[in-house]
Parts: sequence; structure tokens; C-alpha cells
Amino acid sequence: MENNNLKGQPINILLVEDNEDHAALIKRNFSEHRVANNIHHVFDGEAALDYLFHKGDYSDPAASPKPNVILLDLRLPKIDGLEVLQKIKAVEETNTIPVVVLTTSSAELDMLEAYKENVNSYLVKPVDFRKFSNLMEDLGFYWLMWNRCPV
Amino acid sequence: MENNNLKGQPINILLVEDNEDHAALIKRNFSEHRVANNIHHVFDGEAALDYLFHKGDYSDPAASPKPNVILLDLRLPKIDGLEVLQKIKAVEETNTIPVVVLTTSSAELDMLEAYKENVNSYLVKPVDFRKFSNLMEDLGFYWLMWNRCPV
Repeated sequence: MENNNLKGQPINILLVEDNEDHAALIKRNFSEHRVANNIHHVFDGEAALDYLFHKGDYSDPAASPKPNVILLDLRLPKIDGLEVLQKIKAVEETNTIPVVVLTTSSAELDMLEAYKENVNSYLVKPVDFRKFSNLMEDLGFYWLMWNRCPV
Repeated sequence: MENNNLKGQPINILLVEDNEDHAALIKRNFSEHRVANNIHHVFDGEAALDYLFHKGDYSDPAASPKPNVILLDLRLPKIDGLEVLQKIKAVEETNTIPVVVLTTSSAELDMLEAYKENVNSYLVKPVDFRKFSNLMEDLGFYWLMWNRCPV
């Protein structure tokens, strides 16, 4: 299917997820996705910011391309997901990248704080395996095919 | 299908669209949607803000329930879409409502300004009728079924 978004360029997803099982499930779903994509997986909030701002292990910008979408867990080692979100949305360099929070938390307070920090979308991980796969399919399709953002 | 979002409450969509043909197409698609919903349609930016802040024709809050998602055209009479977006995202009363820009403009500058004003998602209306319907289906499903926001 025609890619409405990026005219054949590879689509880059930054996955910020410390849970190995969830990350494996997400990566498997995206590897089978109708839209070709590269997943860059980091395990904590510090690595996410290093990736985005080309620091530490990610000082070579060519090795850490600007993602078209960021999938962000909230409970993360080193730097919390909300703080990562706040830092992404605080500067022009990164605030046009859609950030989708993908968390087990359906707590009203977590949602409120994420929206206050200008999250683009907030998703609760379904416990059911098939539902999780459905969500990955729909979310991938929506953000990779339909949503548009500045290059 | 189970509604992941709202536990059986009616889903309210605020559609801000001055193009009658586009509005009819959007409303028809949502009327056939798998997720039950009420569309509240306003034709200009001033009416959108009146609806959201219970002013003018919309002074009765019961008649203008808080929307679960706002579909916002950019080129609007009276008050421009970007200004509507800016006012929605400026105050706590409304900044947790997802705003999806739905426009004919794929201009980089429009995207940049919308993301700068913290749009949740930016979609370009497909010219092709079938693609437009597919987008409505996917967008409705994503924002009504999967995305979560504070009540």
C-alpha cells in the first residue's frame, strides 16, 4: 500500500522500553507490519535522550536517525518516561516528533501528567496477547501511514 | 467489540469543518462506525471555542459535552484553526482533549506550526474517496477505541 507519509523513505521508530517481553512483542509485530520500518530500541530514559540528542553512545547522527514516532514506556530506569517526554517537547529540535506513551498504567494521574507534557497519544498495553497485537497493528498503521509530521 | 476507552459512555466528537462536503463525508463514515459516537459539528473557529468554553449558543454544558476527540480543519471562518488549537492547548480545562488536525494542506509550515501548538496528530485529507473513508475508519478506531485520555 502507498505510504501516505514518507514517500518511500525508511520509517524509523524509537522504542523506549525496559520490559524485554513487551519489547520483543512490539518488535515482532512491527517486523511483520505492512509498512517497512526500522526499530531502534533503547532500554532506559537516559539512552532515549542520548539517542535523540546525539550524546554518549549515539554521538553519530547517522547511526541514530530522527524517529518518525517514539513509543515511550512511562516507568523507566535512570530517567522516568514523563521526564523524557518533557525534554522532548521542550525544544524545537524534537518537539515535532509524535510521542505515543505505551504503558501498563491506566492511572488517571499518569494520563493527566502525560497530556500536561503534551503527549501525542496515550495507550494502555492490553493484557490479552491478541489485543496487544491488534493494537500494534492499528497504532503502526495510524502513525506510520496516516499521521504527517515535519521532516 | 469492547470499547477500551470509555466503558460504555457515549463518545463525543467535536468536528470543526466549514466544508459541507467534507463534513457530510466524515459524518457518514462515523455514523457507520463500529464505535457508537455522537458528532457535534460546528462550522467555524469561533463556534468551536464557544462549544468548548460554554459561551454564546453553547452556554448549557449539558448540550455541549466535553469531546473525547476534536477533528479540526485549519482554514476556518472567523477564527483560524491554529488559533483554536492554541487556545485549546493553553488551558487545563481543555488541554487533555486530543486534537487531530484534518486538512487539505500538506505544507511543511502548517505542520510545523500545528506541532508547535501541540497538536496531537496531523492528517492530510486524501483526495481519493475510498482512501478518505479508510482514513476515517482508522482514525475513528484509533482515537475512540485505543487512545486514552483523562475524563
